[in-house]
Amino acid sequence: MKKYRKEHFDLADIRRLLEPGPVVLVSSAWNGKTNIMTMGWHMMIGFSPAWFGCYIDESNHSHDMVVRSKECVINLPTADLLEQVIGIGNCSGVDTDKFALFGLTPEKAHDNTAPLIAECYASFECRLADASPNPNHSLFVWEVVRAHVARSPRLPKTLHYRGDGEYMISGREISTRQRFPNQTR
Amino acid sequence: MKKYRKEHFDLADIRRLLEPGPVVLVSSAWNGKTNIMTMGWHMMIGFSPAWFGCYIDESNHSHDMVVRSKECVINLPTADLLEQVIGIGNCSGVDTDKFALFGLTPEKAHDNTAPLIAECYASFECRLADASPNPNHSLFVWEVVRAHVARSPRLPKTLHYRGDGEYMISGREISTRQRFPNQTR
Repeated sequence: MKKYRKEHFDLADIRRLLEPGPVVLVSSAWNGKTNIMTMGWHMMIGFSPAWFGCYIDESNHSHDMVVRSKECVINLPTADLLEQVIGIGNCSGVDTDKFALFGLTPEKAHDNTAPLIAECYASFECRLADASPNPNHSLFVWEVVRAHVARSPRLPKTLHYRGDGEYMISGREISTRQRFPNQTR
Repeated sequence: MKKYRKEHFDLADIRRLLEPGPVVLVSSAWNGKTNIMTMGWHMMIGFSPAWFGCYIDESNHSHDMVVRSKECVINLPTADLLEQVIGIGNCSGVDTDKFALFGLTPEKAHDNTAPLIAECYASFECRLADASPNPNHSLFVWEVVRAHVARSPRLPKTLHYRGDGEYMISGREISTRQRFPNQTR
C-alpha cells in the first residue's frame, strides 16, 4: 500500500477535505494499545478554532478509548483503501490489533498519543473539546489542533458510505469562484 | 426546473441519501413567512429514531426561525440546482423571499409548518429533538419524522461543498454487499 508523505496544512482549510462527507478512519491510543474505527457520521462545526463533530456509539471500543485519552486522529483514506475501510469496520479492537491485521503503519503524531495512519492521504490531530454535549447522544466535539495533508493529488478520490455495503466515490470537481465572486466562504 | 414526484420512504433508510455528505437546503416557516438556507455541516446521528445533527450559525436568519418553530424540512437538491444552491447561500431571508427569487415551489408538508421544495429530489420533515445540546455551539439534533423521496433515479447526483466556491459532484456507486456479506449496517 502507498504511504503518503504529508505536510503541514492550514487548519482553516481542512473543511475542503472533510465537509464533502467522506468515510474517515479514527485512530486512538490508550494504556499502551492503539485502535482504529471506520466512521461516516461527522461534520464540520467551526473554522477557527477548527471544530469537528462526530457520533461514536458507546458500543464501539474506540468510544472508551477516546473518552479516556481525550484525543484521537481523524485520518482520510482514499478510495483504494476500500478493503481496509470495510475490514476495520467489521472487527473489534477489543481482540484485534487493527494496524497489524490490515497492514497499516502507525506514525507518531506531533502532539497526540494516537498515531497517524501513514497510508492515509490526510491526518488531523484532535483534542476533545466536549464529550457528550448532550447525554442522550454519543456526540463529540473535537478541536483539530494540527493537520497533515499530502500535496498530491490536490484532491483525493474518497469513499462516501450509503449503508448496506454501498459506497459513492467522489466524482468530478467544479469551481464556481470566478462566476460567483461574492460566494460565502 | 424539474419537479420531483416524491413518495413515502422508510426513515431507517434515509442515511443512504444523507450520510454521503451532500449540500442540503433547509426550509423553515415562522409567523407566516418561509425561508431557505444552504447547509453543508450536518451528519446522521441515529437510525431509529432517525436523528440528524447539524450546525446552524446564529448569524443565519434560519437559526431564529427553526429555534422558534422547532421544525424544519431538510431538502436534497440534485447537482443541476447548483445556481440555486449558491444563490440561496448568498442572500438573507431577512429581506428576501427565496422561494420567489429562485423560482422554487413550496409544497405543503404532511406534519410540518415548513414547506417541502418541489424541485428537490428528497425532503425530510424534522422536529427539534435538542437545540444547542452545548451552549458553546449552535448544534441542533433533529428527529426526522417523515421522508419523501423520488423513485427515479435510484441515486441522484448531489453537490458536496469544499468551500471557496468548489464543489465535488457525487461519482460512481459501488456495492460490496456480495463480497462482504457480514458488513456492518
